[in-house]
Amino acid sequence: MNRTEPASPDLIDAIRTIVGERGMLLGEDARARSCDPFRSVPVLGPAIVRPADTDEVARVLALCHARGQRVVTHGGRTGVAGGAIARADELVISLERMNAILDIDPIAMTATVEAGATLEAVQQAAEGQDLLYPIDLGAKGTATIGGTIATNAGGNRVIRWGMTRQNVLGLEAVLADGTIVSAMNRFLKNNTGYDIKQAFIGSEGTLGIVTKAVLRLTAMPCTQNVAFVSLPDYASVLGLLSRARRLPQLSAFEVMWQDYYHLVASHDPARRPVEPDQPFYAIVEAMGFDDDVDEAAFAEFLEKAFSEGLIADAVTARSQKQVKDLWQVRESSEILVREMGPFVPFDVSIDIARADAFAQATRTALSERFGDFRMVTLGHLGDSNIHVGVHIGPETAMREIEVEECVYGVVHAFEGALTAEHGIGQAKRAFLPRHVAPGALDMMHRLRDAMDEKHLLNRDVLF
Amino acid sequence: MNRTEPASPDLIDAIRTIVGERGMLLGEDARARSCDPFRSVPVLGPAIVRPADTDEVARVLALCHARGQRVVTHGGRTGVAGGAIARADELVISLERMNAILDIDPIAMTATVEAGATLEAVQQAAEGQDLLYPIDLGAKGTATIGGTIATNAGGNRVIRWGMTRQNVLGLEAVLADGTIVSAMNRFLKNNTGYDIKQAFIGSEGTLGIVTKAVLRLTAMPCTQNVAFVSLPDYASVLGLLSRARRLPQLSAFEVMWQDYYHLVASHDPARRPVEPDQPFYAIVEAMGFDDDVDEAAFAEFLEKAFSEGLIADAVTARSQKQVKDLWQVRESSEILVREMGPFVPFDVSIDIARADAFAQATRTALSERFGDFRMVTLGHLGDSNIHVGVHIGPETAMREIEVEECVYGVVHAFEGALTAEHGIGQAKRAFLPRHVAPGALDMMHRLRDAMDEKHLLNRDVLF
Repeated sequence: MNRTEPASPDLIDAIRTIVGERGMLLGEDARARSCDPFRSVPVLGPAIVRPADTDEVARVLALCHARGQRVVTHGGRTGVAGGAIARADELVISLERMNAILDIDPIAMTATVEAGATLEAVQQAAEGQDLLYPIDLGAKGTATIGGTIATNAGGNRVIRWGMTRQNVLGLEAVLADGTIVSAMNRFLKNNTGYDIKQAFIGSEGTLGIVTKAVLRLTAMPCTQNVAFVSLPDYASVLGLLSRARRLPQLSAFEVMWQDYYHLVASHDPARRPVEPDQPFYAIVEAMGFDDDVDEAAFAEFLEKAFSEGLIADAVTARSQKQVKDLWQVRESSEILVREMGPFVPFDVSIDIARADAFAQATRTALSERFGDFRMVTLGHLGDSNIHVGVHIGPETAMREIEVEECVYGVVHAFEGALTAEHGIGQAKRAFLPRHVAPGALDMMHRLRDAMDEKHLLNRDVLF
Repeated sequence: MNRTEPASPDLIDAIRTIVGERGMLLGEDARARSCDPFRSVPVLGPAIVRPADTDEVARVLALCHARGQRVVTHGGRTGVAGGAIARADELVISLERMNAILDIDPIAMTATVEAGATLEAVQQAAEGQDLLYPIDLGAKGTATIGGTIATNAGGNRVIRWGMTRQNVLGLEAVLADGTIVSAMNRFLKNNTGYDIKQAFIGSEGTLGIVTKAVLRLTAMPCTQNVAFVSLPDYASVLGLLSRARRLPQLSAFEVMWQDYYHLVASHDPARRPVEPDQPFYAIVEAMGFDDDVDEAAFAEFLEKAFSEGLIADAVTARSQKQVKDLWQVRESSEILVREMGPFVPFDVSIDIARADAFAQATRTALSERFGDFRMVTLGHLGDSNIHVGVHIGPETAMREIEVEECVYGVVHAFEGALTAEHGIGQAKRAFLPRHVAPGALDMMHRLRDAMDEKHLLNRDVLF
């Protein structure tokens, strides 16, 4: 592995002349920050640089480029794939001071923001104009727009509004050599040359530092119908999904396998909306704009599903509190952490028709390799995205790579995707080549070389 | 301009050994084909090469790359920006023999197709499974999937389902040097490395030849409510759009200015659904899945718009024939051609709030520069996309560039997009640099150099 020397004191001084004292965090102040949301992974490098504007970002990057200084970019550091981890010889650039909401346009339905703005701040600013920024994550109070763009963040409502990629109209970024690329498109349709913003979205900080963005907003729904249902078999899950897709207001279709629901329902009586006597459970949500119409359409959807035997039992929310309670069943990671012990998380895409076969094959493979294990299975099934957690005993953390090799082997056999929404980061880098065709990997290298020939940006991320 | 020599006879022979006799069109057979849908622009090069599969495409491109032979790719040749025009020293590769519909998957809701399949063939195959491929164009019987991907085609229903980019999950392409890039993703969510398919979408054939694609399908709507309305002022247009955005079933919002509607309505009594006495006209369409619910929601939408004075008059379609008749008013290009005489077409994006101000400023600029002129204005206003046609007299065709300079000057002043959906091709190439920021143009060059360092693919397209 190529290592560069830690940033020299004179480089730090030169950067200080660009960003000023407020723009620098040094020594202990830098080390006090974790690069990971779950574990303490301190910043090991000499400094966190906090530019105040795009021009400062460009000047700092140009300087680092001239000196061959590696850089790691920090947004909210909530990513779970280790994309923000910085080594001793890497300089951290944090966008935290560039967090302005520059404009909310209710007619164009756009938000223009600096990359350091949090997802929640953008959501709230949009809400003030009766508009919705539909990307939603548990970490929204900390996750930044720049980070969600760099990782192409997903979440629960992709089935209706898409991933972050589908909600970014334009952006501004700075390349490794300090070139400012302004592609602040505000339109749904713009074929004026290559759509270069696409290169930065999901590139995990390896092609440039995103500094601003134009986001697509949507009308804020005012109705929310939510049902929690149990289903007798996987064919019924597919049947219900097929029906749900004909609800234009559909905003979420989340499926929980028995292994997950039993664990949650048996440890918290408040998270047991239906009897845990079926193999599958789902949350179906519809968000619309008309109380009567939406409630009637949703009720009709559920009745038909019942009459066709797709649903064994169902509870519908009658208040905002009940909506929250039903969703809470799906968002029980703290129960998993407490009751399962350490587990290896997976975030894969699998053909919807074969997702249960995948879960079964995974259990078989884990059993053959590790004997005893615990596994939970749930996910955004309407988007093909399955999350799996695997615990193989007290040695789970130590044998993480073995567990990954086992499960990713099944993913590969099912022609699934190594990661659906969490990204590669440093954590899944070793598995990338197996899950991408050689020509595609070759093209990824061409892109990275063209944009950052010295590989100074997030060098240990992706490949 | 760099010119290469016409393809040598021995190169033609070498290609024949790859694709066989059926894979070659030579001499008069090649010249009989037009590269343009409106004018006769014959293929001037020595041959049209028609590979039978991806491997043949790769071998032909590798050979051309070794010889420095330029290549122009042909899909259905329905693009209106001159992207398919081939010079005497360029070899044409046509995907016409690679037109198989490989798979329609009703559960994953995907279509896997070869790039030469027509849009209509894909739509029909999807319809056979009660699914919709929502990209729709007048030229669908001829336009190919590869062409719609290369140009990121739009159409009338982008407001609901997005551009082609939003409907392509994966693709396979061949680079200029013959490298096959397989990125046949089938999932809504896949963050396994760079999303390299994005580079090819909208690249107008300059970065590679798309050979296959996985398309996203959607449930086929079974209801279609359409209204043709007249509106008293532009504020009412914006007010109606704001209301329409709260119809989850909304599938089109098309606006016609008085200049367009008067011309059409006065020359065809069948295309005069409402009195031509207002400054604005719109088609609003909603497509859903429930007869009662959708009709009630649409009627309520119209009633509220009436009671608020947004609409002066309205006609709603009560049959498929009436739906077609109302849409026909919007699709009257043959009347424009006949009644306006030659005109220069524009396809721009403009901030929705300022689209009428743009139209007025354009009229002022045309009047100052050319004195007498005729102009028509219409477009996919919900997507910011305005089409304008300008006639300045019998010399319109001869003075096309002057007309473009005049109108694009106004577009630039309004910070609009040079092209919303038609693309740059060869036709708008001269205007590209002015409408893209320097850093963005620099990045486009980097991408092209990285993918096709000799600029052999569609060299005269884009920049």
